[in-house]
Amino acid sequence: MQGAAEKMAAQQRSISVSEFFAKNRHLLGFDNKRKALLTAVKEAVDNSLDACEEAGILPELHIAIEQTGTDRWRVTVRDNGPGVPKSKVPSVFGRLLYGSKFHRLKMSRGQQGIGISAAGMYGLLTTGQPVRVMSRVVGSQACDLRLAIDTNANRPEVVSDEVVSVPWPHGTEVSIELEGAYARGRQSVDEYVELTSIANPHAEIHYRPPSGPVTFRRAVEELPAEAREIRPHPHGVELGTMLKMVKETRAKKVAAFLTTEFCRVSESTAAAICRSAGVSKSASTRSLKPDSAESLYRALQNAKLMAPPKNCLSPIGAEALLAGMLEGVRAEFYTATVRPPSVYRGNPFQIEVALAWGGEVGRGEDEHARLIRFANRVPLLYQPGSCCMHRAVADVRWNNYGLSQSKASLPRGPLVVLVHLASVWVPYTSEGKESIADYDEIRKEMRLALNECGRRLGMLLRRKKKRASQRKRRDVFGRYIGEVVDALASMADVNAEELRENLEAMARQHTARADEEYDDHGRVMKSPNMPNTVVVDREEE
Amino acid sequence: MQGAAEKMAAQQRSISVSEFFAKNRHLLGFDNKRKALLTAVKEAVDNSLDACEEAGILPELHIAIEQTGTDRWRVTVRDNGPGVPKSKVPSVFGRLLYGSKFHRLKMSRGQQGIGISAAGMYGLLTTGQPVRVMSRVVGSQACDLRLAIDTNANRPEVVSDEVVSVPWPHGTEVSIELEGAYARGRQSVDEYVELTSIANPHAEIHYRPPSGPVTFRRAVEELPAEAREIRPHPHGVELGTMLKMVKETRAKKVAAFLTTEFCRVSESTAAAICRSAGVSKSASTRSLKPDSAESLYRALQNAKLMAPPKNCLSPIGAEALLAGMLEGVRAEFYTATVRPPSVYRGNPFQIEVALAWGGEVGRGEDEHARLIRFANRVPLLYQPGSCCMHRAVADVRWNNYGLSQSKASLPRGPLVVLVHLASVWVPYTSEGKESIADYDEIRKEMRLALNECGRRLGMLLRRKKKRASQRKRRDVFGRYIGEVVDALASMADVNAEELRENLEAMARQHTARADEEYDDHGRVMKSPNMPNTVVVDREEE
Repeated sequence: MQGAAEKMAAQQRSISVSEFFAKNRHLLGFDNKRKALLTAVKEAVDNSLDACEEAGILPELHIAIEQTGTDRWRVTVRDNGPGVPKSKVPSVFGRLLYGSKFHRLKMSRGQQGIGISAAGMYGLLTTGQPVRVMSRVVGSQACDLRLAIDTNANRPEVVSDEVVSVPWPHGTEVSIELEGAYARGRQSVDEYVELTSIANPHAEIHYRPPSGPVTFRRAVEELPAEAREIRPHPHGVELGTMLKMVKETRAKKVAAFLTTEFCRVSESTAAAICRSAGVSKSASTRSLKPDSAESLYRALQNAKLMAPPKNCLSPIGAEALLAGMLEGVRAEFYTATVRPPSVYRGNPFQIEVALAWGGEVGRGEDEHARLIRFANRVPLLYQPGSCCMHRAVADVRWNNYGLSQSKASLPRGPLVVLVHLASVWVPYTSEGKESIADYDEIRKEMRLALNECGRRLGMLLRRKKKRASQRKRRDVFGRYIGEVVDALASMADVNAEELRENLEAMARQHTARADEEYDDHGRVMKSPNMPNTVVVDREEE
Repeated sequence: MQGAAEKMAAQQRSISVSEFFAKNRHLLGFDNKRKALLTAVKEAVDNSLDACEEAGILPELHIAIEQTGTDRWRVTVRDNGPGVPKSKVPSVFGRLLYGSKFHRLKMSRGQQGIGISAAGMYGLLTTGQPVRVMSRVVGSQACDLRLAIDTNANRPEVVSDEVVSVPWPHGTEVSIELEGAYARGRQSVDEYVELTSIANPHAEIHYRPPSGPVTFRRAVEELPAEAREIRPHPHGVELGTMLKMVKETRAKKVAAFLTTEFCRVSESTAAAICRSAGVSKSASTRSLKPDSAESLYRALQNAKLMAPPKNCLSPIGAEALLAGMLEGVRAEFYTATVRPPSVYRGNPFQIEVALAWGGEVGRGEDEHARLIRFANRVPLLYQPGSCCMHRAVADVRWNNYGLSQSKASLPRGPLVVLVHLASVWVPYTSEGKESIADYDEIRKEMRLALNECGRRLGMLLRRKKKRASQRKRRDVFGRYIGEVVDALASMADVNAEELRENLEAMARQHTARADEEYDDHGRVMKSPNMPNTVVVDREEE
């Protein structure tokens, strides 16, 4: 017994984060071969798009997937971004938890500093091959590095280092060889690339899968509005975090600390907060006592503050979203809605929803609707069941909008639902970034957007029902008008032709809706011979 | 543009693992207040039980939950383990990814070196209060440390450090103040403690929730068989991992590397593997070329090897499991099964299943069965929907065993299903250790165990059905025997009394099963007046 404590203590040691994720790589999305291939592509593409946008460049991506052996693939992704200076390449691509996006509050695809290095580590683990990174910054030669990760220390190891000449003026190319499996269809790389192009109509994507090259042309010639970085909002910060901020701030006085480290705290607000906390506003941050810090925290939480700024988000935009969707799917009806930005735990976020119904939307009446999920323009392909978006769609009472639905599941019918969450910090349920955690505030916004789109679909479905019934009535009229005219003509002295015309006109008038045609937003067009000429947009009857 | 690359590169920096988990603390099970309280208790209890068992001590735990303010609670867990030497206390309790269990293959509750430090970090973040650890190693005084975590560096900060005298001879007491919420019922700390005592009948647990103290007495006076550590099995190792092992091994020659670093590789097997790889068995590990290493890997994967040793696992044992369950629930029928050990990705694992049906198992015919999940004796209370165990139970065709069930969901009826997975490495779907990843090998073993238990339940339900029908028949006989006897007596010269007795005996004989009584294993007992006297155990008819 006496030895036990010492013996056990001697076995205690530290675990590097790369060892941890190497052993738990399913947490990062590398659970099986097919998903591993997708995850590697996804991490590289996310990084490329982020880099281009941050540098103000319209993205052009080259994605290639080549087979190099049984269950062995090489993934190569090249962008026209600004490039990564050589000195930073090893850490950015060969070290887990290293990046530029974790410490700021700004909408971006990556946020953890794990993804691309983890993909490289997975490749190294399964094939023994290092990651190859070529990168060129404008005005200099391209570097060509091969990197391994020393998992014991979570450090990059430069295996080879050369200068190469490349035909592109700037950008980065990452190439990873890994154990994987390529298959088409749902949850495939193909689907991911297609959805990425829909959510990023400003990107041109050259995709080279084994089945032959495809190019997804740029549909919009403008970059999305630049996402801005914000400071944390006081109501999203916890006591311990504030204590840490007090310790680390450059501000010398408490009031200055409040105004410079947080958003939405003006000088007068700061003064009021200090007053209510019983702390002098010129008290030194260095010598703030724990008790005072805690009252300051309480006062900060109780203060009425404006919600965080929301111009930090860059939604896809309902129209662009629809335009993107039209590229792939021809539906009978489209609708989209963008909610105003909102806040969860101090983090601004915004929800967009789009629906496509009928037409070529291929599923039968009995199939469940298809749900397409995006977060910060990144398609989410796995774990729908544990995703807040899935729950939000299942919670809508689609029966009210003319669709059938079993309890707590997706509605049935020829329907595609697209949900996009844009946020400065997306609360993923795992490092693999596959689904969104269930925050009430986020689900509520989804519900409102889904209801709005659902109402519009419901209106169309009711109109179509009415049109169908009026068409039936007109058929009945048509069948009997001839007989009625003949009967009247034989009984009295009437102009049979005139009577027929009058009766037919009346029938047309009484069944006017039988002639209705709708544009792809469900609006009534005047004449079926003049498509796209929208005349009336009747509101909900 | 030219500045973009440099500007963006300048923002790249490393992220400490504690910063990462502080921001993503929902990954660790701290998503909401109620779950946070549970997770903190769970991590401390897991550690305590592991420590006691490893030191060969029958565990005695004191768990207290006290309210210290609005939404503020103090969790205190004390064990009678060997104690942690003072020098190790800061790292063990104040540093993420530090521990003794990650680098070995051995069945234990903890495995990642994150849990207890993460709980302390959460407490610090939400209340600003450091963790308090008192620990006493036999023969020395107890230390009393207060620890904070420097999240920027993932390092413990010793806030205070004293020597105290405590009335217990050895053990560790951890105390964490945190933002939490206490509520009873499902997924509560109460449920967790109760289930922990069921799965650990060798532990005595003194539990002090706000509603008043409870003691869960030890039901078994023996420690479970000690779990053994094993070396990795070659078939569970990937190329990159083997390359790393080659680099780090102390073995100088390839053959020695194979026999010392892996299990199930004898000297002759190693020689054969080297031969088939075209590598000399006395080749130096230091100078092994990448090509040779890869052929060695292929040969190793193709070699026929014994499955990994399985005496490294310590299942709860079906009888003990049942005994534990009997403490809480009085059912009409119990059954349990323990599968032989099996292997997934080189890791030995073993499945146990127990069922309790009817009696006080409170749910009605229409309610779904209750599924109780354990991994390495730890109850899993959250995320059942994403757990392999849930899927395995839902996949069983319970209709065959006399229960009703909708497609792909749990069966209905007064049923509790308990599933336990024991493994040297439990594949959790998240760091929060809430559910098990979906490995085919694991799900298959669960299915076999569930089917076996299901068949036994089905047998009982069929017996009960037959008994009910024979009771009905006997009632009918009973009703008519009197009339028949009277009728016959009036027609012929018979001894009415004798006739009645004969007929009644015949009826009893023909409906013998109406008298059947079953013990709580579904076995037929001879007489209802002599319970527990099992005479016949008829096999499946």
